[in-house]
Amino acid sequence: MHPDHDRADASARSDRPTTGLWLIGARGSVATTATLGLAALAGGHADPTGCVTARPGLATAAMPGFENIVIGGHDLSACPLPKRAEALADAGMLPSRLVTLTREALDAADAEVRPGHDPARPEGSGQATAERLAADIVAFRERHGLERVVVVDVASTEPLPDPLPEHDDAALLAAALADPDRTPLPASSLYAYAAILAGAPYAAFTPSASIALPALTHLATEHGIPFAGQDGKTGQTWLRTVVAPAFAARNLRVLSWSGTNLLGGGDGATLADPHAVDSKLSSKSRGLRAITGTDTTPLHIDYVPDLGDVKVAWDHVHAEGFLGSRLTLQTTWSAYDSMLAAPLVLDLARLLGLAHAAGLTGPIPELGFFFKDPWGSDLHDTAAQERALTDWVRDTAARVPATGAPRRNADGGAGEGSR
Amino acid sequence: MHPDHDRADASARSDRPTTGLWLIGARGSVATTATLGLAALAGGHADPTGCVTARPGLATAAMPGFENIVIGGHDLSACPLPKRAEALADAGMLPSRLVTLTREALDAADAEVRPGHDPARPEGSGQATAERLAADIVAFRERHGLERVVVVDVASTEPLPDPLPEHDDAALLAAALADPDRTPLPASSLYAYAAILAGAPYAAFTPSASIALPALTHLATEHGIPFAGQDGKTGQTWLRTVVAPAFAARNLRVLSWSGTNLLGGGDGATLADPHAVDSKLSSKSRGLRAITGTDTTPLHIDYVPDLGDVKVAWDHVHAEGFLGSRLTLQTTWSAYDSMLAAPLVLDLARLLGLAHAAGLTGPIPELGFFFKDPWGSDLHDTAAQERALTDWVRDTAARVPATGAPRRNADGGAGEGSR
Amino acid sequence: MHPDHDRADASARSDRPTTGLWLIGARGSVATTATLGLAALAGGHADPTGCVTARPGLATAAMPGFENIVIGGHDLSACPLPKRAEALADAGMLPSRLVTLTREALDAADAEVRPGHDPARPEGSGQATAERLAADIVAFRERHGLERVVVVDVASTEPLPDPLPEHDDAALLAAALADPDRTPLPASSLYAYAAILAGAPYAAFTPSASIALPALTHLATEHGIPFAGQDGKTGQTWLRTVVAPAFAARNLRVLSWSGTNLLGGGDGATLADPHAVDSKLSSKSRGLRAITGTDTTPLHIDYVPDLGDVKVAWDHVHAEGFLGSRLTLQTTWSAYDSMLAAPLVLDLARLLGLAHAAGLTGPIPELGFFFKDPWGSDLHDTAAQERALTDWVRDTAARVPATGAPRRNADGGAGEGSR
Amino acid sequence: MHPDHDRADASARSDRPTTGLWLIGARGSVATTATLGLAALAGGHADPTGCVTARPGLATAAMPGFENIVIGGHDLSACPLPKRAEALADAGMLPSRLVTLTREALDAADAEVRPGHDPARPEGSGQATAERLAADIVAFRERHGLERVVVVDVASTEPLPDPLPEHDDAALLAAALADPDRTPLPASSLYAYAAILAGAPYAAFTPSASIALPALTHLATEHGIPFAGQDGKTGQTWLRTVVAPAFAARNLRVLSWSGTNLLGGGDGATLADPHAVDSKLSSKSRGLRAITGTDTTPLHIDYVPDLGDVKVAWDHVHAEGFLGSRLTLQTTWSAYDSMLAAPLVLDLARLLGLAHAAGLTGPIPELGFFFKDPWGSDLHDTAAQERALTDWVRDTAARVPATGAPRRNADGGAGEGSR
Ligand SMILES: NC(=O)c1ccc[n+]([C@@H]2O[C@H](COP(=O)([O-])OP(=O)(O)OC[C@H]3O[C@@H](n4cnc5c(N)ncnc54)[C@H](O)[C@@H]3O)[C@@H](O)[C@H]2O)c1
Ligand SMILES: NC(=O)c1ccc[n+]([C@@H]2O[C@H](COP(=O)([O-])OP(=O)(O)OC[C@H]3O[C@@H](n4cnc5c(N)ncnc54)[C@H](O)[C@@H]3O)[C@@H](O)[C@H]2O)c1
Ligand SMILES: NC(=O)c1ccc[n+]([C@@H]2O[C@H](COP(=O)([O-])OP(=O)(O)OC[C@H]3O[C@@H](n4cnc5c(N)ncnc54)[C@H](O)[C@@H]3O)[C@@H](O)[C@H]2O)c1
Ligand SMILES: NC(=O)c1ccc[n+]([C@@H]2O[C@H](COP(=O)([O-])OP(=O)(O)OC[C@H]3O[C@@H](n4cnc5c(N)ncnc54)[C@H](O)[C@@H]3O)[C@@H](O)[C@H]2O)c1
Ligand code: NA
Ligand code: NA
Repeated sequence: MHPDHDRADASARSDRPTTGLWLIGARGSVATTATLGLAALAGGHADPTGCVTARPGLATAAMPGFENIVIGGHDLSACPLPKRAEALADAGMLPSRLVTLTREALDAADAEVRPGHDPARPEGSGQATAERLAADIVAFRERHGLERVVVVDVASTEPLPDPLPEHDDAALLAAALADPDRTPLPASSLYAYAAILAGAPYAAFTPSASIALPALTHLATEHGIPFAGQDGKTGQTWLRTVVAPAFAARNLRVLSWSGTNLLGGGDGATLADPHAVDSKLSSKSRGLRAITGTDTTPLHIDYVPDLGDVKVAWDHVHAEGFLGSRLTLQTTWSAYDSMLAAPLVLDLARLLGLAHAAGLTGPIPELGFFFKDPWGSDLHDTAAQERALTDWVRDTAARVPATGAPRRNADGGAGEGSR
Repeated sequence: MHPDHDRADASARSDRPTTGLWLIGARGSVATTATLGLAALAGGHADPTGCVTARPGLATAAMPGFENIVIGGHDLSACPLPKRAEALADAGMLPSRLVTLTREALDAADAEVRPGHDPARPEGSGQATAERLAADIVAFRERHGLERVVVVDVASTEPLPDPLPEHDDAALLAAALADPDRTPLPASSLYAYAAILAGAPYAAFTPSASIALPALTHLATEHGIPFAGQDGKTGQTWLRTVVAPAFAARNLRVLSWSGTNLLGGGDGATLADPHAVDSKLSSKSRGLRAITGTDTTPLHIDYVPDLGDVKVAWDHVHAEGFLGSRLTLQTTWSAYDSMLAAPLVLDLARLLGLAHAAGLTGPIPELGFFFKDPWGSDLHDTAAQERALTDWVRDTAARVPATGAPRRNADGGAGEGSR
Repeated sequence: MHPDHDRADASARSDRPTTGLWLIGARGSVATTATLGLAALAGGHADPTGCVTARPGLATAAMPGFENIVIGGHDLSACPLPKRAEALADAGMLPSRLVTLTREALDAADAEVRPGHDPARPEGSGQATAERLAADIVAFRERHGLERVVVVDVASTEPLPDPLPEHDDAALLAAALADPDRTPLPASSLYAYAAILAGAPYAAFTPSASIALPALTHLATEHGIPFAGQDGKTGQTWLRTVVAPAFAARNLRVLSWSGTNLLGGGDGATLADPHAVDSKLSSKSRGLRAITGTDTTPLHIDYVPDLGDVKVAWDHVHAEGFLGSRLTLQTTWSAYDSMLAAPLVLDLARLLGLAHAAGLTGPIPELGFFFKDPWGSDLHDTAAQERALTDWVRDTAARVPATGAPRRNADGGAGEGSR
Repeated sequence: MHPDHDRADASARSDRPTTGLWLIGARGSVATTATLGLAALAGGHADPTGCVTARPGLATAAMPGFENIVIGGHDLSACPLPKRAEALADAGMLPSRLVTLTREALDAADAEVRPGHDPARPEGSGQATAERLAADIVAFRERHGLERVVVVDVASTEPLPDPLPEHDDAALLAAALADPDRTPLPASSLYAYAAILAGAPYAAFTPSASIALPALTHLATEHGIPFAGQDGKTGQTWLRTVVAPAFAARNLRVLSWSGTNLLGGGDGATLADPHAVDSKLSSKSRGLRAITGTDTTPLHIDYVPDLGDVKVAWDHVHAEGFLGSRLTLQTTWSAYDSMLAAPLVLDLARLLGLAHAAGLTGPIPELGFFFKDPWGSDLHDTAAQERALTDWVRDTAARVPATGAPRRNADGGAGEGSR
């Protein structure tokens, strides 16, 4: 079932795991789908449809193959991966056939899940927590003899934290983290800090604060960590950033862009909380405003539990054309949200693996293609992002030996400083 | 109301007409809208919203300004332009205010409309007809002292002609054209031949045969005529070629793309004829198939007279994502069709004016952005076409003095004789 | 242009005004449209399309004809009706032709508009205010020698008032109304009280408190006033109460019914206020919940100024069918809101005129067809309401002489004794 | 899981089969779903959601219970019911759980399927064929000791036959049926004739000619057969006949009603044949034209195989409101077609069982609720049909003893001989 181009890549390298994918929220819907999907791909039970890195023009032997990736992670949930997968199959999202075929891999991945950090249950100083989390990542890398581990945050969206001076100043932050009576960082940022401590490339698939606090961004760059974010651009926002630039190219003036999202599932339940949804809503409108210059962009996310894992998004665009004439475009998008997200999470593992192998550090703006709120870039136009991504993969791959043997191994280890 | 960038261009050149726009179908809905719109733009009564050439990044002093363009054309209809404009205002499409403000210009343009060629009423040999039509164009050029006249076909869509050996062979064609008892060319091709005879750059905004017969294409290139086509990409097809490449970029597999168009107006009435609609339908599906590889693309165009000049287009896309999951996208587009087309017709006048000034001949693939069926190009992806267009304008403008004085006149170059 | 059945009615009666229509919010969008529309109907310039009472099966000579109705009202706005009508024509809603043809009638109606009560500018005790407003209504009735005046509230939607004991107890209310330092009633309820004092049948086209406070309802019934409400069921809610009963009849189980409204215009601006919108939102969901038993009915009203007077409503219905299968229905409704409302306002004038002529008092449940929140009835199913309305008109008309001469005139003054 | 009202009915009668349901097309998608569904209902594994006769207000002990119905039928397909059910489960329509739970019942029903009549393989005279088919029905009735067998045609839609004098004249028809060299009746009509011969109540769920030829209608009435049809009103047409009357009730004028259907599955494949689709298309537009008076109702049915058993239907309604204003309604309906049809097929078995028990003969207009093209009735308005159905069930049930013992058996009445 593997397309030929990918098979070709695969044959060039061994099936030995070289790259870890450590998921924050490892038992969630996106993570379960990614884990099952990776096993299905590696086992030849599925095509890499939906995986950007498997598409002709992007596939390259310089990236780890799907069969070279092994998964672990943190979660608070006690529901094991195979059970979650079954529930997602019963709900009509995952094919039962694949749940059966990948059960072993799901069990193996579940054995690599470690207890996460629950902000409702402080466990000593922030520094201690982060070190505990980092140790889990490092142990995973060593246990499997991996070249690197890519951390991807797919945990529940957090409310945005109140601003603190510690977020902007590494020294202040260090002091507060050392204090067991203070909690200067939300959970997502503690995980990001742990990734930094573990020397692991990092991606934020959520709109949570995560690594996006200046003090952490600075630290990450200092530690030679490449990172990318933020908030996976998978459905409605993706479509908007596909269509909006086309209006601009036609010199049509968007007057308003209104939208509603309906979703059930775990993410829907989380976003039913008005605090959590705020970070999502602002992240979703940013790109649209940037491209269209329009301020009228009312947007809603409604929790509709009976929809299960399906997301339905309706958009209504009102634009002005020639001589003041009006036109409208409506779109309705309906998809299993996690089925859109999971292959992109696998892509990020491969691409950040490549970035790390090539010795890149700091935010990778060329990965903006994957995100609603692209770090290091003002570009929201999906087609333009796609070109930037394609160019970046070609150029970066050229810096890395095709065997998959990373430059950094050659030149002596993680976070070398020169990078 | 003019955006600044355009004002700047305008100040650099005089308001003297340098470029003629000769419309085949000069009293139709698109032509009337273009004529009124040009007058409104030149008079400062409207912004060039919807004009691609007025958008930052494309606007250049090397193109004729709106105020440098004068309109004439051929039509069979006896309904004068001001009256057609009033009817379009009553139907809710054109703003009454602008009809009043541009009445003089509409009268002037109407005085430049010459009787077209009615295929139902043969008027001697094809050669004689074409020479009569060409003479109208040349007289128009001389009457106004124009540097060039761009011919754009916006007449009613014709049924496609039955294939003839004459279409492929210039010598055979010449013989048949000379024979008063034969009609080797449909009307649209006679007009295209007339443009060639008149040395006029040419664009086919319709899916009719026009210049796209090999014998004519060959002749046009020989005579140093730049030309572009075919079939304006203004609404549903535009949207499809915006969205379909984005599916491909995500490695999502389009399974089917179904669509329905509802429209009234003159174009709707024409396309209610099953013969005429065939050329349209095949032109509309070509790009989609090329991009998605999908064969299931049922498409309908229904004549719904009560909709007047509004076109409503519904699309249903069914795609496969990760692990065989299914997703759907529906779009509904609603717009005044001629309001979309008219500014692009003005753009084509400016761009073919530029091409001619730069001495280009033959099909201009970089104008594929404007067409459902791009001549000289296999590229249908709108974003990619937009880049190609932008690059082409920049490069071509560089070859032409900014005063609007064409290089080709100066250097006595290509196509000199035929003009 | 008048359909025959209506002509027939008209011929049976004189053109003399017999019935006043007193609009609270007389210079608003709905009121302006109703006033212009009435003049157009009476003048034979338009068909009564959209008027329920003009439809075969409902039209009856027992109701006042359109030509027997004269309009006046209260408003705070100083913008005269002809000017408002022009603005609505410029915005594309009202036909300019009709604005010209009805200018005289608009001027005449505007001369009948009296300053309303602005809650931000108290003007003595509530009793004094209500008496002032009632005097305006009575003077209008006498000035035109009318048999009766029907008051319809089409003013801006108010926030719902905080509950007070005075709302439930007529004696307490009387005391508070007498006190210049208290404001026990919101403006809409003062207007309703004024209608009661003037002996005028009353309808609430808005979701404001109006006559729906128990103390006022009681008073109205005591004074022999027939009344009807509440909140015109014109678009999305109408469609929902058409479709939802059909699901029930098929034994299909609605799981969720989600909706979004986009609107500009005056009503949109008012509803952009979260307090004002609350009364609207709760009124809109009531019927749906009653019919479907579903609790998941997220609903939004967004102010999208560029839409002007157009309302766009999207609904997404998720239902369960046989063997747990799922089905979805989406609807998109797009209409000029005031064009839907205005004919129903005229209908209410005719129908409450009929009710009053027949000596009915208290809430008229059979007028529930017109309202989102039908007073005196639990019936929301539009088809069932339509039957109830048709039966009611037939039965009530049978109690009133067909000449239009009201029973109450015959038996000596307002509703006296027999009611 | 059974709602109480139904349980109550059930308790009043034994579980012994009293009523046969004989399906023409017994191994098709609708038939398989109905058979599995009946077993699931009888076994208490599913609620009768989607069954009209299970809804409060219609449920009555005078009808056979689901547990009193046994299924058999004719088909050409050799694919056994359990296998077809599995295929429909794999395609995501039927729940796998229920396929497992009902396997025994599916096997049993499959054992009752007899070879149908294939028009491509004549098998002697029409009379002989019909007698063979009738014998299958009678044997089924006797084998199970049933009071009656209801025949429902759910076979593939046929092209409409060319008109013949034999269709209008019973004597001519008899002669032609006796002639082995003639085929005066299409297959669907042979099946209907067989039902008549077997004394079996009959329903046509398809738009095929079936019993709707005058000569057969006449014969059926003569033989005391109650029958109902034609063409199940399950999705788009149902929605249209729900919404269109509501426009009429508002005196809104429908200008055009345009629609497109996309479907895969067996029915989709059949309707991809332009001859077969014609009978469907004309049946679908009839009701709409009757209600709205509109002639502009373009309609398409497209075969989109990747949609499988899902039907997606888009409608666009353009209407005129007050003062010539325009409004639009769009609807998109998406459902598993067979899941809509199957419960109605079970309803028809129960209702025609009731009709037969009550001794009714000829077309039953009150069953028009179930059909696009209601025999014996001009009523298309779904709400009005629903009232007629409810009244009919109440009145008819009153004529039949609640034990399920049919009046007609007791009184030796109509149709006795043929049974
Ligand atoms: N298309 C998409 O699905 C999409 C797109 C963009 C962003 N996202 C984001 O991805 C995230 C995951 O979505 P999902 O549908 O899988 O949600 P989910 O609710 O199914 O999974 C979230 C998981 O995170 C875990 N979790 C919560 N708090 C945690 C903590 N402190 N530490 C460790 N684990 C924790 C939960 O236990 C759960 O297993 C969400 O934030 C969502 O907004 C998803
Ligand atoms: N968005 C768009 O409007 C759009 C997009 C793509 C292509 N087009 C094409 O543009 C063309 C014009 O569309 P329209 O809406 O203006 O149609 P229209 O019917 O309003 O105008 C067509 C005009 O062509 C004239 N005509 C017909 N035969 C002629 C002949 N032999 N010689 C000269 N004139 C002739 C007619 O008299 C009429 O005035 C159509 O072919 C249409 O398919 C339009
Ligand atoms: N389809 C519909 O249009 C529809 C349906 C249901 C209900 N309604 C209700 O009808 C009402 C009118 O809608 P509209 O679109 O005409 O709004 P609008 O804003 O155009 O008009 C409201 C008018 O009320 C006047 N007003 C405000 N406060 C007043 C007061 N205290 N006394 C007297 N006049 C006052 C305003 O000056 C304005 O002229 C709204 O409450 C709306 O919710 C409309
Ligand atoms: N919502 C709905 O599903 C719906 C609504 C209205 C009408 N219908 C009609 O119901 C019918 C069945 O639909 P389906 O989806 O089950 O189709 P299907 O193709 O799955 O099943 C049709 C069955 O009929 C059988 N058949 C064909 N010719 C036959 C013959 N001569 N004798 C006996 N059997 C024969 C086929 O073998 C097949 O098993 C179609 O005619 C369809 O138009 C369905
Ligand atoms: Na091409
Ligand atoms: Na009520």
